[in-house]
Amino acid sequence: MYGAIEAGGTKFVCAAVDEDMNIVDQITVATLEPKQTMKEVIEFFKKNPVKAIGIGAFGPIEISPNKENYGQILNTPKLAWRWFNMYKELSAALDIPIKIDTDVNAAALGEFKEGHAVGKRSVLYITIGTGVGAGFVLEGETLFGLTHPEMGHILIRQKEEDVFKGNCPTHNNCLEGLVSGPAIEARLGIKGHELGEDHVIWDHVADYIGQALMTYNLILSPEIILIGGGVAQQAHLFPKIRTAFKKHMNGYIDHEIIKGDLEEYIQYPKLGQKAGLVGSIYLAKGIALD
Amino acid sequence: MYGAIEAGGTKFVCAAVDEDMNIVDQITVATLEPKQTMKEVIEFFKKNPVKAIGIGAFGPIEISPNKENYGQILNTPKLAWRWFNMYKELSAALDIPIKIDTDVNAAALGEFKEGHAVGKRSVLYITIGTGVGAGFVLEGETLFGLTHPEMGHILIRQKEEDVFKGNCPTHNNCLEGLVSGPAIEARLGIKGHELGEDHVIWDHVADYIGQALMTYNLILSPEIILIGGGVAQQAHLFPKIRTAFKKHMNGYIDHEIIKGDLEEYIQYPKLGQKAGLVGSIYLAKGIALD
Repeated sequence: MYGAIEAGGTKFVCAAVDEDMNIVDQITVATLEPKQTMKEVIEFFKKNPVKAIGIGAFGPIEISPNKENYGQILNTPKLAWRWFNMYKELSAALDIPIKIDTDVNAAALGEFKEGHAVGKRSVLYITIGTGVGAGFVLEGETLFGLTHPEMGHILIRQKEEDVFKGNCPTHNNCLEGLVSGPAIEARLGIKGHELGEDHVIWDHVADYIGQALMTYNLILSPEIILIGGGVAQQAHLFPKIRTAFKKHMNGYIDHEIIKGDLEEYIQYPKLGQKAGLVGSIYLAKGIALD
Repeated sequence: MYGAIEAGGTKFVCAAVDEDMNIVDQITVATLEPKQTMKEVIEFFKKNPVKAIGIGAFGPIEISPNKENYGQILNTPKLAWRWFNMYKELSAALDIPIKIDTDVNAAALGEFKEGHAVGKRSVLYITIGTGVGAGFVLEGETLFGLTHPEMGHILIRQKEEDVFKGNCPTHNNCLEGLVSGPAIEARLGIKGHELGEDHVIWDHVADYIGQALMTYNLILSPEIILIGGGVAQQAHLFPKIRTAFKKHMNGYIDHEIIKGDLEEYIQYPKLGQKAGLVGSIYLAKGIALD
C-alpha cells in the first residue's frame, strides 16, 4: 500500500491505496494546531501501514530534498504552522520514505499520470481559488528551484475600467490579487458563484488569466494547461480565458495547437479536485522506488 | 574533436575543439542565403572532422528531437531562412550526430558547465540585444516544450511617464518591445551606448527588466540569473535592475539570496559573448555520448 496526504490550509486528506490505486482507507482531518492534526495523520498511517507517503502541501514550504529543513513550512501567515517541519514530524513517527512537494506540483503530477496530461511531455496545473498557484511537471519531474514557484504572484496589466485595487497584501494587483476567489468577492461584496455569467467582472478575470497563461506559455511552453480550483468551476470562464489568451498572444507562437481552438490545450483538470491526492500517491510510488 | 556552431542572424561562428576544450580551428561566416552559408560551414567541418556538432541557433526553430522537422527554422522574418532545415542540410553532408538548440539555451548551458552557474542546479540566461530571449537549464537539460520558450515577449507594466509605444511588431510594448537595443534607440534616435548613464530611459529599462526577472523567478525559480547581450554590456544597468527586481518582489520570496544584495544572483555571464559557443560544444559532447 501507498500513502498520500493532501495537506491543505483548512483540511488534511489522508489516503491509503493498494497497488492498483484503489483507496483502501481515507480520512479528512481539520487543519488545527500542527501537533493535533499530525497526531490524527500518524494514527491513520499506523492503522494503515504503507510503503511510502507522498504529500502535496500548502506553502510556502521547503521542497528541495537536499536542504536540511526539507519539509518545513516557511513564512506562512498561518502562524501555528510557521516553521513546523512536517517531514521531520512524520519521519520520526513512521519509519518509511516520505516525499513532500507543493499541492499544485502534486496536482500537476496527478494529471500527468492519470489525467488530461497522460502522454504529454509537460503539464502546467493552475489552481484559482482562495489563492492562485501553479505546478509544473516535465517528463515526470516536478519543477522547483531556489524555492518552489509562486506563479500566482506575477504582475499583469490591469484594465483601465477595472478600478479594483487588488487584495494581495504584498503586490496588490498581481494575478492572485485580482482573480482569486476573495479578490472577485472583494469587488462587489458578492461571491463569484453568485455573479451572473455575463457580469463584466468575469471579462476582467478572464483577461488577466489569459495574460498569465500567455506569460506561462512563453516561459515554460507547457504541452497542456489545466486550471482547477474553486474559481475554475465557473465553466463559462474557459471560453473567455481562451479568447483572452489568443488576443494577448496575437499569433506570436506559430504552432497548430496555439493557433487552434485551445479546447484541449486550456481546460479543467480531468481529475478535478482529486488531482492533488492522486499526484501525492505517485509521489509516494516514486520515493518508494528510489 | 567536437564541433560547435553559433548560428546567429548576422553570422555563423564554427569551432572545432579538442577533448580539453582547446579551440583547434574557428571561422566566422556571414549569414547570407542558407545554401551559401551552409556550404562554408560544411567545408569547415570537412576540413576539421569532429565526433559530433552542437548548434545554438537563432529562431524560431524546431528543437524537439522527436519532431519530424527537427532543426527547421520556422516562421522567421528572415525570409531566405524560413522553413530551412539546418539539421537535415548538415546531416546529409556530414554523417555524425548533431544536436540543435536555441542560442540562449546553448548560452545557459555554457554558463552551467563553465560559467557562473557551475555547481548550481539551474540557470536562467537572458540576452538583451537586438532582441530579447532567454534560455533555461535545469540539472544539465535545456528547457523546451510545445515550442522553445519565447521569454522576451512577456507583457510587463509600462511606466506612465514612459510614453514610448514599444517596437515589437506583434505585442508593441512587451519586454522586447521596450528594452531591446532597437527599442532603446527608437525612443530618442540615440543608441544606448551613447545615452548618459543617468538618462531616465535607463531607469525605465531597468524597471522593466526587473519586472521580467520577478516573473521569471516566480515561475522558474532559477538558482542564478545571467544577463548577456549588447544592452547588458551597460554595466551601470545591473545595480538598477537589482533594485527594480527587489522593489517589484516586495519581499515576497523569503529566501536569503533573494533578500540579499543580489550581486551574484543577477549578473553578467562569466563567459560573456562566448557562452553560446561554449554551450554548443557541450551540446555536441552530450549527443556524442548518447
